[in-house]
Parts: sequence; structure tokens; C-alpha cells
Amino acid sequence: MNSLFADRIADVPQSFIREILKVTLDPSIISFAGGLPNRQLFPVQGLQQATDKVFATAGQEVLQYANSEGYLPLRELIAKRYAEKQGLDINPEHILITTGSQQGIDLLGKVLLNRNDHMIIEEPGYLGAIQAFSLYRPQFLPIPVDEKGMDLNQLEMTLSTTQPKLMYTVPNFQNPSGISYSEENRQQCARLLEKKKLYIIQDDPYADLCFVSQTKTSFRKLLPEKTVLLGSFSKTVAPSLRIGWLIAPPPLMEKLLVAKQAADLHTNYLAQRIIYQFLCDNDLDQHIRTITSAYGAQKDAMVASIRRYFPEGVQCTNPDGGMFLWVTLPKGVSAMELFEHALAAKVAFVPGNPFYINADDTNTLRLNFSCMDIPTIEEGIKRMANAIKQLLSAQ
Amino acid sequence: MNSLFADRIADVPQSFIREILKVTLDPSIISFAGGLPNRQLFPVQGLQQATDKVFATAGQEVLQYANSEGYLPLRELIAKRYAEKQGLDINPEHILITTGSQQGIDLLGKVLLNRNDHMIIEEPGYLGAIQAFSLYRPQFLPIPVDEKGMDLNQLEMTLSTTQPKLMYTVPNFQNPSGISYSEENRQQCARLLEKKKLYIIQDDPYADLCFVSQTKTSFRKLLPEKTVLLGSFSKTVAPSLRIGWLIAPPPLMEKLLVAKQAADLHTNYLAQRIIYQFLCDNDLDQHIRTITSAYGAQKDAMVASIRRYFPEGVQCTNPDGGMFLWVTLPKGVSAMELFEHALAAKVAFVPGNPFYINADDTNTLRLNFSCMDIPTIEEGIKRMANAIKQLLSAQ
Repeated sequence: MNSLFADRIADVPQSFIREILKVTLDPSIISFAGGLPNRQLFPVQGLQQATDKVFATAGQEVLQYANSEGYLPLRELIAKRYAEKQGLDINPEHILITTGSQQGIDLLGKVLLNRNDHMIIEEPGYLGAIQAFSLYRPQFLPIPVDEKGMDLNQLEMTLSTTQPKLMYTVPNFQNPSGISYSEENRQQCARLLEKKKLYIIQDDPYADLCFVSQTKTSFRKLLPEKTVLLGSFSKTVAPSLRIGWLIAPPPLMEKLLVAKQAADLHTNYLAQRIIYQFLCDNDLDQHIRTITSAYGAQKDAMVASIRRYFPEGVQCTNPDGGMFLWVTLPKGVSAMELFEHALAAKVAFVPGNPFYINADDTNTLRLNFSCMDIPTIEEGIKRMANAIKQLLSAQ
Repeated sequence: MNSLFADRIADVPQSFIREILKVTLDPSIISFAGGLPNRQLFPVQGLQQATDKVFATAGQEVLQYANSEGYLPLRELIAKRYAEKQGLDINPEHILITTGSQQGIDLLGKVLLNRNDHMIIEEPGYLGAIQAFSLYRPQFLPIPVDEKGMDLNQLEMTLSTTQPKLMYTVPNFQNPSGISYSEENRQQCARLLEKKKLYIIQDDPYADLCFVSQTKTSFRKLLPEKTVLLGSFSKTVAPSLRIGWLIAPPPLMEKLLVAKQAADLHTNYLAQRIIYQFLCDNDLDQHIRTITSAYGAQKDAMVASIRRYFPEGVQCTNPDGGMFLWVTLPKGVSAMELFEHALAAKVAFVPGNPFYINADDTNTLRLNFSCMDIPTIEEGIKRMANAIKQLLSAQ
């Protein structure tokens, strides 16, 4: 019966990370491979109290089918936060509550991409986006990113030779690399894109996990008509509730709503109400400060350990936020080979290749710093350092 | 920017029901147009107690990201119920928890349908399925259904002249018509289909809402290798939690899992745990008996009122379960025109046309009986009877 499968499903890369995560179930392994927020910091009590209140005040209503757009007071609250935090003027009617921001990616692919349409994607880029968009069979146009942001020469060249319909970007504390686009890089990108007929998807799951004081300008500010924003409570409240959102200009929103209805009718309504009640009764910014203070210290410890223990010639990013940093091995050294040595030394990470459109192997890798305490981070980095030295000396 | 939309989104029928539901927000209108379970019967207390227990015993864990397949104990419990209720031997590993059974439909379309692939669909058929599959641009092959089940001549002819990849069927208490396939009709369908290379999707959201004593044979029993089962707790526990499931043979399941990850990573995990705890601590069958006893009495009252008040020549189905029945007006009488008269008489329903693949107007319509008490049903049917008489006398 295999020949009954649609062509699109043949093109999707296997989830290599899934396989890695299985390997790292062994508790003696220190795993920097995951991408989870630290569960110790989940606001369990606040969410439980919010849930009690929701059941007590609206028990029957919150169990019924709900509208596809999402709970309006929650959308109003999201709009208010954008105004306060980023000076963005968002109409709550232009916000769609999604089943995690991953669903936003899928809906945008569905509504915008015909087969072989061109779309710009960062390299390295978010694996979940590569997987979701792949199902609509576009031609990816990868543009390298580094600690300044997008490679502007490459972007300019790509825009002059192709007609991309879509650009997908994570300009703040990107997964997998931890990099952020500089203020200047954003302005330059916007200048190159402003005359083009395309949508820019700014996926911003880590925006609030910021270790420094200032927020950088959103593409929504620079190119409001062209920009779709994706956001999520997964990293700031709790991921299991699958509450994300999507902000899109009206003509696009209308189509997205049709796709949302076909996808799952509406997002879990009880969960929307729990999050809303939690946000009404608690200080989210205070909670975010608790998270960023912990993640920031863990990131600092990881970068310091890397600088101390890794051999010369190995580099890493030093993110201003988020959950990941990116390591570059000396040219020609295989992250896949290192993975084998590291596993033997009881430490794990994600080799860089699944974050590229076409790469069998790379000299780059992703480390997660959100999930472990500082002594564990130091021990894990020491183990990795030994594995790297072992690999280098064998070459 | 409209020209940036993908071709697939142009083909999706507008949700006429959405528009109707807006009209019926007027509280003076008795609406048979909705498709909601009766909120008075939601097990609010049981779900609240289950939630408290889940938070108290696994607060941090239930807020974290979870696996894409779904909570294994919940899948085991679903498998156990299939064994007990329908004598079906289901491996829990072949169950995928979905964000409502609507998501199951979408994932199956994504994994199976290339553009212009043929697929069999019931006529009238479930609107949400027509909408979801339309996005993958198949050629629908509608087969009429009536109170015996599928039109076997038409099915045979269709199978001899086309090569459908998929058949979508709701053989128990169908939405919109309330009909169920007879035992003999199922056997005959299976005989016609058994040599064909296709998947049969049996969507079964209403299976438990059965007003009579015996359950009919599942296509999963008749054609196990070919059949995908969709199920849901939306009609038996609560819809807002969006917990459905999909049961598929292994090679298909592997592909569905890839599509599930791309769609929303995993189904709301807190909600999965709440439902599981609720099912452990409560007698679901007892709760279902409460629901079916209420819905059955409401259905009986509706059918009796129709027979008493509607003019001769108007017919209706008399469902053995579910939430809907189907009215057929005399030939040539327009349900769309009746809708206008009915609204003026302060009663609403859904005209039949959105449930057909290509129909601008029909002489059929859908009535929902799950949401109102018996006096309201009687009053609403009287109002409809007057509207019908008025329309007929004007012709």
C-alpha cells in the first residue's frame, strides 16, 4: 500500500533529533541535545490556581466548542503586550490563536506555498520549520546567518535572481544558533525586501527570553504590510498547553482562518482560558525575569567552560537570549564523528547538518543550555572537550 | 498581495455554516443549525477533580513538551475500549492522539492525497471533511447514501471506472443525515472494496452516542489492513479539550507521525492527562448512557413533532444515534428559500447544499437535536412547519 502515499511526504527529512533523543534517555549521559525549557521553572501553582478559577467560574462554557480565531480577551492581552514591549500597534482581530506556533508555520505553508515556489530560509535554520514547509514542496533558498544576522550580499543576489514568495526568519536568539540580527542588519534586510512582493514570517518564540536590556526592532515595525509574526507561550509559561499565535494582515488572515478550521477547528479552549486567567492573576514579566536570570547564568557558564576547556580553533556564539548556542569546529572536522566520541564520553548534542537544507555533514553543532544546572553544564563541557581533543588527535 | 496565495486555498468552499451561526446568535431564534453537544451534560466536576489530581501528582511533567504519538496509557485505554465494545484488536502503538479528530482528517489528506487523486466521499457528507480534503485538491467521487447505507450500484460503477485512493465514510449516525449503514450494506461495501488498493477512513465521532442496543460491524473488522479509524472524546467527554485519535496500519502511521510533528509537534499534553485521569476515576459508560438517554428522547420528540406538524410529502430520517437528522422537502422545493422563511418565523437549520460536492441548492436540510429541551424542540418544529406551509402555498 506504500504507493498510496502522497508525493509530498517522500520529501520530508527524517527527524534525526528524534533518534538522538532516544539515545540520550540513558541517565548517565549529559544531554545538550534537547530543546526543552527548564521544567523546574514552570509556574505549576499559578497554573493550577488559574485552572481552578476557570472551572469554578465558567465550567460548562470552557468545555464547549469555541470559535476558530481564539479567545478574544487573550488576543487583546497579546496585543497589549506587543504595544508595551515593542511599541507595535496590533489589532486583536488580526491575531489567530494556534496550536503552538508550530501550527502557525504549517498553516502559512498551506496557504502560501505552491509546489516549487521559492522561499528564503536561514542557514542554519529551525528544523521544525524546514520539516513543515517541506510538506508543501517549495524550493528553499538558504541564506547564511552569522552573529550580525543575514548575509546581505547573498540576500541581495538571491532577490535579484529569484522571486521568493516567502522569507522565514528567527531574528531573535535563533534556534539553532542563538544569534540575533543586529539593528543595522534588520534595517538593511528591510531595505532589500521592501519593494519585493513577498511575506516575511518572523518566528519569535524566544523574544521574551532576553538576557540583555534592549529589544531590537521587529520586521513588523519595518515592513508591517509584509510581516507575519509568530509567537508562543511555550517558552514563557508552559509548552504542553500548545498555545501559540499568529499575527497577519487581513487578506491573509481570512485564508489562514479557513486553513485553521480544516486543521483542527479551534485551539484547545480550556487551555486558552487557563493561560488567560494565569496572565490576569500573575506578573508574567516577573516570571520571565526568573527564567532569563537562570538561563542567562547557565549560558554564561557554558560559554566560560567552552572558552576554558575546548581546544583552540573551536568557536562558539555568545547569545543574548534564548536556549541554544552554536559551536563551530575547525574546518573539515565532522560533527557527526564527534557525536560518536561524545556519546562514548557520556555527553550528547545535535550535529549541525539537520539545520541545513542540503548537508550530509558539517563542522557545526547545537548545544542547549536551558535545562541543566551550572555544575552539570561544566561537567558536560569538560566531557565534550575531551571528545573533541580525542577526535582532533586522531586526525 | 493576494496573488501570493497558494492555489489550493482558492478551492475551499466558504463555511456557510459559520455565516448561519452568526445569524442565529439572536436569542429569540430557536436554532437547529448548530452541531454542539449539550453543555448541560458536560462532566464539569469530574474533569475538575481529574485536573486537580493531575496537577497535584505530576505538575511539572504535564506542563513539559511531550511525545508526538500521545500519552501511552491513554492509547492503551482507547484500545481496551475497542476490544470491549466492538471486539476489535487494536495495538496501542497504532494509535495516534490527534488535536480533535478533525486533525486526523487533515493529516490523512496530507499524507495520502496528490492533486487530482480520486477519493470517494458520501453524499451528503461531513462538511468539515470536504473542507479539509479540498485543500489537497482531490477529485471527489460522491456516492449517495440513504437509510440503508451507501448506494452499492453507484459504488460498483465508480470502482469500475476510477481508481480511488481513499474512501471517507461515517457509517454510524452520520453527520449530516443521521443515517447508519445496515449490516448487510457494510458487508457488501467491503466485498466491493476488498480487492481494491485504497484506504478506507471510518470517521466515528458518534459511535458511542447509540440509542439502540447493538453496535454494527466496523470496517476495521471487515477490512483491517485497509481501514483507518478516527475517534474522539468531543461528543462523550468534552469538545474544547480537542482530544481525538487515529488508528492506522504501521506503514501509514509512520508517515502520519511525520505530518503530526510538522502540524503541531504534539497534542496538548495536559488535556491528554486530564482525560486519562477522568476515565480512570469515572464510569464513562454510565456517563454515555446519561447522554444517549437525553439525546434519544430529544430525537424521538423531534421525529414525533415532524410527523405531527410538517405537511405531507416532507420526510425525515429517524436516526439510531448521533446528534442530527435529515429532512427531505418535496422535489423542487428549495431549502435555501425555506431558510429565509424560517428565519422570519424565528427558527434556523442548515440547508443541505454545503454537504454536497456540487450543489447550489437542494431540497434537503439538517436539524440538530442534541442541544435543546423537548418543549423547545416542539416549538421550533411548529415554527418550521408554518414556514414550510407558507413556502409551499406560495409556489
